[in-house]
Amino acid sequence: MSDYSPPVEDIVFVLRHIADLESLMELDGFSQLPMDEVEGILEEAGRFMVAEVLPTDRVGDTTGAKLQADSSVAMPDGFDKAYKELVKAGWGSITFDAEWGGGGLPGTLGMAISEMLTATNMAFSLCPLLTHGAINAIEAHGSEEQKSFWLPNLVSGKWSGTMNLTEPNAGSDVGALTAKAKPEADGTYKITGQKIFITYGEHELAENIIHLVLARVEGAPPGTKGISLFIVPKFLVNADGTLGEKNAVTCLSLEEKMGIHASPTCVMEYGNSDGGATGYLIGEENQGMAQMFTMMNSARLGVGNSGIAISERVYQKSLNYAKERLQGRRPETQKGDQSPIIEHPDVKRNLLYIKSQLEAMRCLVYYNSALVDLTRFGKTQEDRTSADERAGILTPLSKAWSTDVANEIASVGIQIHGGAGYIEETGIAQHYRDIRIAAIYEGTNGIQAADLVARKLPIRNGEAMEELLLEIEKDVKENKLDDLSEPINDALSATRASNKYLLECFSELKIDAALSGATPYLELLSKLVAGWLMAKSAEIARTENYPKEFAEEKSATAEFFCKQILPTATALAPAIMAGDEILNAGINV
Amino acid sequence: MSDYSPPVEDIVFVLRHIADLESLMELDGFSQLPMDEVEGILEEAGRFMVAEVLPTDRVGDTTGAKLQADSSVAMPDGFDKAYKELVKAGWGSITFDAEWGGGGLPGTLGMAISEMLTATNMAFSLCPLLTHGAINAIEAHGSEEQKSFWLPNLVSGKWSGTMNLTEPNAGSDVGALTAKAKPEADGTYKITGQKIFITYGEHELAENIIHLVLARVEGAPPGTKGISLFIVPKFLVNADGTLGEKNAVTCLSLEEKMGIHASPTCVMEYGNSDGGATGYLIGEENQGMAQMFTMMNSARLGVGNSGIAISERVYQKSLNYAKERLQGRRPETQKGDQSPIIEHPDVKRNLLYIKSQLEAMRCLVYYNSALVDLTRFGKTQEDRTSADERAGILTPLSKAWSTDVANEIASVGIQIHGGAGYIEETGIAQHYRDIRIAAIYEGTNGIQAADLVARKLPIRNGEAMEELLLEIEKDVKENKLDDLSEPINDALSATRASNKYLLECFSELKIDAALSGATPYLELLSKLVAGWLMAKSAEIARTENYPKEFAEEKSATAEFFCKQILPTATALAPAIMAGDEILNAGINV
Repeated sequence: MSDYSPPVEDIVFVLRHIADLESLMELDGFSQLPMDEVEGILEEAGRFMVAEVLPTDRVGDTTGAKLQADSSVAMPDGFDKAYKELVKAGWGSITFDAEWGGGGLPGTLGMAISEMLTATNMAFSLCPLLTHGAINAIEAHGSEEQKSFWLPNLVSGKWSGTMNLTEPNAGSDVGALTAKAKPEADGTYKITGQKIFITYGEHELAENIIHLVLARVEGAPPGTKGISLFIVPKFLVNADGTLGEKNAVTCLSLEEKMGIHASPTCVMEYGNSDGGATGYLIGEENQGMAQMFTMMNSARLGVGNSGIAISERVYQKSLNYAKERLQGRRPETQKGDQSPIIEHPDVKRNLLYIKSQLEAMRCLVYYNSALVDLTRFGKTQEDRTSADERAGILTPLSKAWSTDVANEIASVGIQIHGGAGYIEETGIAQHYRDIRIAAIYEGTNGIQAADLVARKLPIRNGEAMEELLLEIEKDVKENKLDDLSEPINDALSATRASNKYLLECFSELKIDAALSGATPYLELLSKLVAGWLMAKSAEIARTENYPKEFAEEKSATAEFFCKQILPTATALAPAIMAGDEILNAGINV
Repeated sequence: MSDYSPPVEDIVFVLRHIADLESLMELDGFSQLPMDEVEGILEEAGRFMVAEVLPTDRVGDTTGAKLQADSSVAMPDGFDKAYKELVKAGWGSITFDAEWGGGGLPGTLGMAISEMLTATNMAFSLCPLLTHGAINAIEAHGSEEQKSFWLPNLVSGKWSGTMNLTEPNAGSDVGALTAKAKPEADGTYKITGQKIFITYGEHELAENIIHLVLARVEGAPPGTKGISLFIVPKFLVNADGTLGEKNAVTCLSLEEKMGIHASPTCVMEYGNSDGGATGYLIGEENQGMAQMFTMMNSARLGVGNSGIAISERVYQKSLNYAKERLQGRRPETQKGDQSPIIEHPDVKRNLLYIKSQLEAMRCLVYYNSALVDLTRFGKTQEDRTSADERAGILTPLSKAWSTDVANEIASVGIQIHGGAGYIEETGIAQHYRDIRIAAIYEGTNGIQAADLVARKLPIRNGEAMEELLLEIEKDVKENKLDDLSEPINDALSATRASNKYLLECFSELKIDAALSGATPYLELLSKLVAGWLMAKSAEIARTENYPKEFAEEKSATAEFFCKQILPTATALAPAIMAGDEILNAGINV
C-alpha cells in the first residue's frame, strides 16, 4: 500500500472556497478551466506523483546526492527517470505564460500540484522549485530577448535554475556578499567568487543549469545597493539555442545535511585560473537586491507549501499506522486481544492536532497564493495594490508559521509511531529530518517575523493590517461562524493591542522592543488568520451541500483549531509586548 | 575551545535551594558532605566528563555501534577507554549504598553528575543509566544473597545492566509479552523469547552484562499479572564470582536509529536450539510488573534529566555561536562591519527562551529527585508517604515535559545556527536527532500524561494534588514572589478547574473524556510547578546574597518563564476540558 494518497478533496475545497480559483481563472491573463476539469487535473497529477516520484523518496534519503571525482553530481537511482517523466508530463509548466510554453493557469493551482510533488519527495521537488524562482526573476526583470532566449527551456524543465545568494559571510545579510562581476567589451560580465548552500547547483537531471547569481560590479556601492543579478549558465548557449562550451562554473563540494539528502547543496565556484564565468546582466546594474526579492517571495510561499506537503504526508502515514498498530486494550475489546492505537484518546488527539493545523495551513497558504495571482492580473490597479499589500503581510506567515508547525507535526508523527518512529526504516524520521530545513532557508523564520513587524505591519501606518482585521471581524459578526466567534474575537483583540504597541515602538524609535516581540506576534497573527479561514471553511462545508461526513469533519477541525489551539496564541500577547529589556537582563553578555 | 562547560554554578544553586540537598544528606541512610565539598565534587566530575567523555560524542555519532559477524558489538573509538576511566573514577557509584561499594550519597547529587555525563555524550550515558535501573530493581526486590552476589560489580560498573521489557507486540502494552520461563529442578529458570529495543543489550565495555528480563512462567495468568522478573547474565557467574560459560543470550541485530547512534539498540534472543537461557527469579513469581515499575520510575527521572543535559549543551553551543557569528549590522555597529547575531533581538529571545526553560526543568527534575530520596530515607513514615505521593505526581512531568521542551530547545538551537545548523559537521543537528528518543522511551510522553491523569491525580481523590497546589498558593501569597504572582495564580486557577473537571470525568466513568485532556494537562501542571520553583529561585537569589549579576539573571529567567511562557499553558484549560467527542468527530474512522 502506498503511504500517500493525494488529498485532492481537501485541496479542491480550499481552491474553490478559500482561494476562489474560479474567479482567478476569469481574470484576463490567466487561462480558464471549469472546476471539474481542475479536479481531474489534480487527480491526474496526484496519480503521477505517486507512480513516478514517490518511489524515489526513500532511496533518495538513503543514497543521497554524491559528488564525483570529475565534479559532476550523481543523483540517486530513479531520479533521472522521474525528472524526465515530470518534464514530459509538463506538471512543472502549467502556471507559466503560454508565450514561453506554459499553461497560463494561476499560480495557486500550481501550489496544489507542487504540494503533491513535495509530499512525494521533498528533496526532488527542490529542483523545480528553484527553477520556478529563476523563471520568475527572468520574467519580471529580464529583457524581451533574455526571456525568449532562456525561458522556454526553463519552463519546459529541459533546463533547471538556481538562486545564488549566500556566501560564507553573507547569509541572512545578503548585502555583505563579495562575488565580483567585471564588465567585458561585448556587454557580458566575468563573474568570480564562491557561493555556498546552492540547492541543485550541480546535477545532470537537466541538460543545462541556469544560475542566477548576485555579484558586485567593480566600483559598485557597498551593501545591498551595489548588488547586481546575472544569468550564468552551466553551459554557454549558442545563438541557435544549442549548447556550447562549459562555462567556468564548478561544484567544489556538497554539504552533508541532516535531511533532504538527495538535494545537492553545493559550494559553487565561479571563475577559475583562466578568468571569470560568463554572465549576462539582468536589468540594470545595482538592481539585484530588488530583483532577487521577486524570486524570494515566490520561493517563500513555496517553502510554506512544503510545510503543508510534509504535514499531509506525516498525517497519512501516522493515521495508517495508528489504525494498524495494535497495542493496549480498550474496554470494548475482548480480553486477550489488543486494540488499534487510534482508539486511545491521546493518539486520536495527536492525529486531530495534526489534521486541524494541516488544514489551517492549507487555507492560509492557498489564500496567500491567490493574492499573489491577483497582484499580477487583478482587474484594477486598486485590486492589484491591495492584493499586493495583503500578500506581503501573509507571505511571512505562510513561510514561517507553516514550517514551524510542520516541524512540530513531523515530531508528533514520530510520537504516534512510538519506538518504531525512531528507527530509520519506518520512514517517518526522514520527514522530521527533511522538513527541518524549511524553517531556515529562504530567510530564517526569525527574519520572516522581523519582516512582518518591521516592513509589513507599518504599511500605511498599520492600515493594511487593520483592513485584514476588519474583514475578519465583519465575517465573524455577519456569519456568526458558530460558537467559534469567541476565541477568534479574543485573538483579534490581542492582535489589535499588539499592533498598537508595535507601531508605537516604531514611532518612538524603540526598534529593538518591537523586534523582541516579532516571533510571538507572527504566531498570533498566523493562528488568527488561519482560525478565521477554518471557521469560514466549516460554515461553507455546512451550508453548501457537502456530504455530511465531510462537513462534520471540517466542523470538528475548525472547532479544534479555534478552541484548543488559537487560545494559546492569544496568550502570547504579554510576550509580544514585553520589550527588549528583559532579554538584555536575561542574556547578559 | 570545548563547546561545553559544566554548569556547576546553577546546579549547586538548585541542589542547595530547590532540592535542599543539605537536609537530604542529614537523613539517616545517606552519607553527609559539606556543601563546598559537594561543589568540589561536581567541579571534578565536570572536568572528568569534558576531558574523558566529551571527545567521544561526535565520533560516536558518525561511527555508531556496529554488530560484528560473531554477534559481538563493536563500539566507536574511545568508548572503551572512556568507560574504563569512568569506572575507575567511580562517578557512577557515588549514590549507591556503601554496602555494595557505593558512596551512599543522595540520588539527587547523582542526577547532577548524570546531567553532565549525558550532556557530554548522551549515547554513552545510557549504559550507566540502564545499569542504574538494574541496580535499583535488584536492591529493592532481590534476596540478600542476590544483592551481595550481583550488586557490587554492577555498582562499580565492572558489569553493566539492561532492562528487557519490549517485544514486537508488547511495547507500551507490557502485559502482552510472551517470553517464557520454565522452572528447573535447581531453582533456576530457562528463559526463551525475543526482546527488542534493548539498550546496551550487547557490548564489551563491561566484563559482563546483567539482563533483567520480564517473562511468563508456564501456567501464569495472562496480562500484567502473570509476569515475572529474572536476572539473566550474559556470562554465567561461578560461586566464587569468576565468569563461567556464556549464557544462551544473543544479539541478533541492531536498529538503525535517527540518533544516539553509539548506543546499541539490540534485538536480543534468549535461548537457542539447545534450550533456554539460565535465569534467576527475583522475588516471587508473577510480581514482575510491580518490580519493573521500580526500575521504570528511576529511569523516567533519568530520562527527564537527559532533557536538561542536552538543553544545556544546546544552550551553550548556541550562545557561543551567537557571540561569534557576525551577520547583519546593528545601528551601533560601524558601517561596513557586521554585528554578532546575539545582538539581534530575535536571536537573544531564542537564547532566553532556551535558558529560562532549561533552568525551569532543572528545578523541576531536581526537586522531584529530592522527593524520591525522601521516599527512601525520610524521617517519618508520614514524610516518606507524602514524598512518595508527590514524587509520583511529578515524575511524569519530569519525564514528559522536560523531554518535550528539550526537543523544542534543540530545534531552537538549530535555528540560531541558521543554515549551518542543518549541516551535520556543525554538531547541533546531532543533539536534535539524539534527544528525540527521550520523549518516546521509558513510556511515551502520552503514556506519562495518562499516568498523571488516571493514576496520580486520583490519589486520595485529588487531595495529594491539592496539597501541592496549596503549597504553591501559600508560597505565592507569603513571599509575594514579585509581580510573578499573577501569572502563577492564573495557572493555579486553571489547574484547579482542570482537576475538578478531570476528577468528575472519572467519577462519571467518562474515562476517555479525561484521557483526551491528559497531554495539555501535563503541560499546564508542569509549567505551573516549574514557574513556581523559578519564582522561588529568583527570590532566593535576590535575598540570599548572591552576586548581583547572578541574581539579576535569575530574576530575568523567572520573569520570562512566568510572564511569557506560563500564560500559554494557562490557555490550555479549554483543551484540557474539551472532552473526547470532538476527537471522534474530527478523526472519523
